[in-house]
Amino acid sequence: MSTSPTSLTQRARDIPSLLDAARAGQNRAIGQLVSVVEMGSVQTRRAVAVACAGVGQARIIGLTGSPGVGKSTVVDSLIGAYRERDLKVAVLAVDPSSPFSGGAVLGDRIRMQRHALDPGVFIRSMASRGRLGGLAAAAPEAVKVLEACGFDVVLLETVGVGQVEVDVATHADTTVVLVAPGMGDSIQVAKAGILEVADVLIVNKADRAGATLVAAELADMLELAHRSTDDWEAPVVSVASAAGIGLTELMGALDDHGTWLATNGQRQQRRTRQAAAEIQAVAIDRLRSTLTDHDHGVTLLALATAVVAGANDCYTAADELIDSAGHATHIDSDMRAVTA
Amino acid sequence: MSTSPTSLTQRARDIPSLLDAARAGQNRAIGQLVSVVEMGSVQTRRAVAVACAGVGQARIIGLTGSPGVGKSTVVDSLIGAYRERDLKVAVLAVDPSSPFSGGAVLGDRIRMQRHALDPGVFIRSMASRGRLGGLAAAAPEAVKVLEACGFDVVLLETVGVGQVEVDVATHADTTVVLVAPGMGDSIQVAKAGILEVADVLIVNKADRAGATLVAAELADMLELAHRSTDDWEAPVVSVASAAGIGLTELMGALDDHGTWLATNGQRQQRRTRQAAAEIQAVAIDRLRSTLTDHDHGVTLLALATAVVAGANDCYTAADELIDSAGHATHIDSDMRAVTA
Repeated sequence: MSTSPTSLTQRARDIPSLLDAARAGQNRAIGQLVSVVEMGSVQTRRAVAVACAGVGQARIIGLTGSPGVGKSTVVDSLIGAYRERDLKVAVLAVDPSSPFSGGAVLGDRIRMQRHALDPGVFIRSMASRGRLGGLAAAAPEAVKVLEACGFDVVLLETVGVGQVEVDVATHADTTVVLVAPGMGDSIQVAKAGILEVADVLIVNKADRAGATLVAAELADMLELAHRSTDDWEAPVVSVASAAGIGLTELMGALDDHGTWLATNGQRQQRRTRQAAAEIQAVAIDRLRSTLTDHDHGVTLLALATAVVAGANDCYTAADELIDSAGHATHIDSDMRAVTA
Repeated sequence: MSTSPTSLTQRARDIPSLLDAARAGQNRAIGQLVSVVEMGSVQTRRAVAVACAGVGQARIIGLTGSPGVGKSTVVDSLIGAYRERDLKVAVLAVDPSSPFSGGAVLGDRIRMQRHALDPGVFIRSMASRGRLGGLAAAAPEAVKVLEACGFDVVLLETVGVGQVEVDVATHADTTVVLVAPGMGDSIQVAKAGILEVADVLIVNKADRAGATLVAAELADMLELAHRSTDDWEAPVVSVASAAGIGLTELMGALDDHGTWLATNGQRQQRRTRQAAAEIQAVAIDRLRSTLTDHDHGVTLLALATAVVAGANDCYTAADELIDSAGHATHIDSDMRAVTA
């Protein structure tokens, strides 16, 4: 876990052999590939993306919910259920608010220890501080790596309920949202717009007081939510994973959604939408760096100083910054004609 | 509050007269200008930025902290204290997780009602759904509008502790972070990297059990935090705003920081850094739209389909997208040389 970005970059040429080792089941190689995506240079990340393109075929399941809702316990149950089917399972747990990364720093991870020695299971935490663009950019790339490494199921777990979590959740084939009674979760979930992206809802800790009410609330809110035009109706599944309740129903709901995805071309559609978002994110990162790299930010500083002095405004300054980097002036002049 | 984006766009030519009305104290005009920033077209927003450039001189104070920490009560006290000095005060309350906006939808706002009829006070809520780029882009522009409208103090209040809040907080002259005992806040604050940007820390509800411990924890963490190189030492102020305790100390801390900002050229430096970030954000928004606008996203869809089929990777596809939009090919070839 002490891999430095420099050594990761030096390893760019070795990416294909690293992927071979990972596909042969070497957890260390898998971990190194994920580290590259998390902390490596653009060049190394590109090498990983090239090596992984078109490799593997995984079911990607995103799980999101507030801290304390019991995600890890559910993930642990899902690992067990998929392992019973003899499927290889990878878990990527991402914590947008955590500066830590690279391993089992979250106490939650300890609950999954029973799978630690199972060679068919890989578990990894990831945090937001690693690189520019944050998790919303790194997590989908890491998922692709795990898919290329030959896992049949990738569980993408995000901690928290917010815009980043929604973004990450949309990079799964199936998005599962967890709530628990007594946490005011359903309101949070509705506010954050997560209901709109949920394919399966779990009321966790369903053996506690208030669980029935929360399930009813969710069902009501689902009816009101501005869902996308697809014809999948998100089921609400009550689970008490500590007591082993609801796991069969949950697996059933996930299987149903998997069937629906396959028979409706939805999986293809979702993946295309995700790929478009990822391509755009990479392109924008590239353009962002060209805005300051070409003169080490000298132009930007001069423009900012003029804006603070009141001699310019941000929009005109942005035009000038774009011009100075040599971008698409034909579009600039179009825009100026509109605003002149 | 039912102003539609279309009517806001039609109003582009009227922005200068709207600003005149706002500066004359018409709250309706102020609200309309903020609405343009929140929901208007690029062209109208540009017109606002042009009209506001170099107008006004406000002290901008950012306040951030978890829901329930008591921000509104502190803001209410600050409004009162600044009004006693006969300064005009604007409050912009932004809630990154809320889909609602445009008025007093937050119950919290009700606590500020006593200032509702004071013509020297303007209070406005803003939510994240209004526009692309979200609050992190809109809030700084709205603050500039309020500065241009002639307010002496702008209180920028963000709900929550996360990356968006940190981003928003860095768009103030002075950033105030609130924590309260019993909420595990200090840990959250440390995790989110907010300590690094705090100029003043408030332990609110300081009359409750555990407040002394929280204050000590914060002081310890401040020593450990990787603070920027400036020589300001963030004070920890204990406040019980409901009981009127600590307001004098808080105002003293804010005044001290104001003096420090002025005598060290820090205010100028911060504003320049903020302006640079805003210029970049506007430029990136522009470039982002050129990536799909020029052929209505046809290229992007084709590239995404190829990536899903495994025939291409996201990084190469991003190159092709950038090329197709006619951007900065000289930088492309540099990058290719590195990665070839």
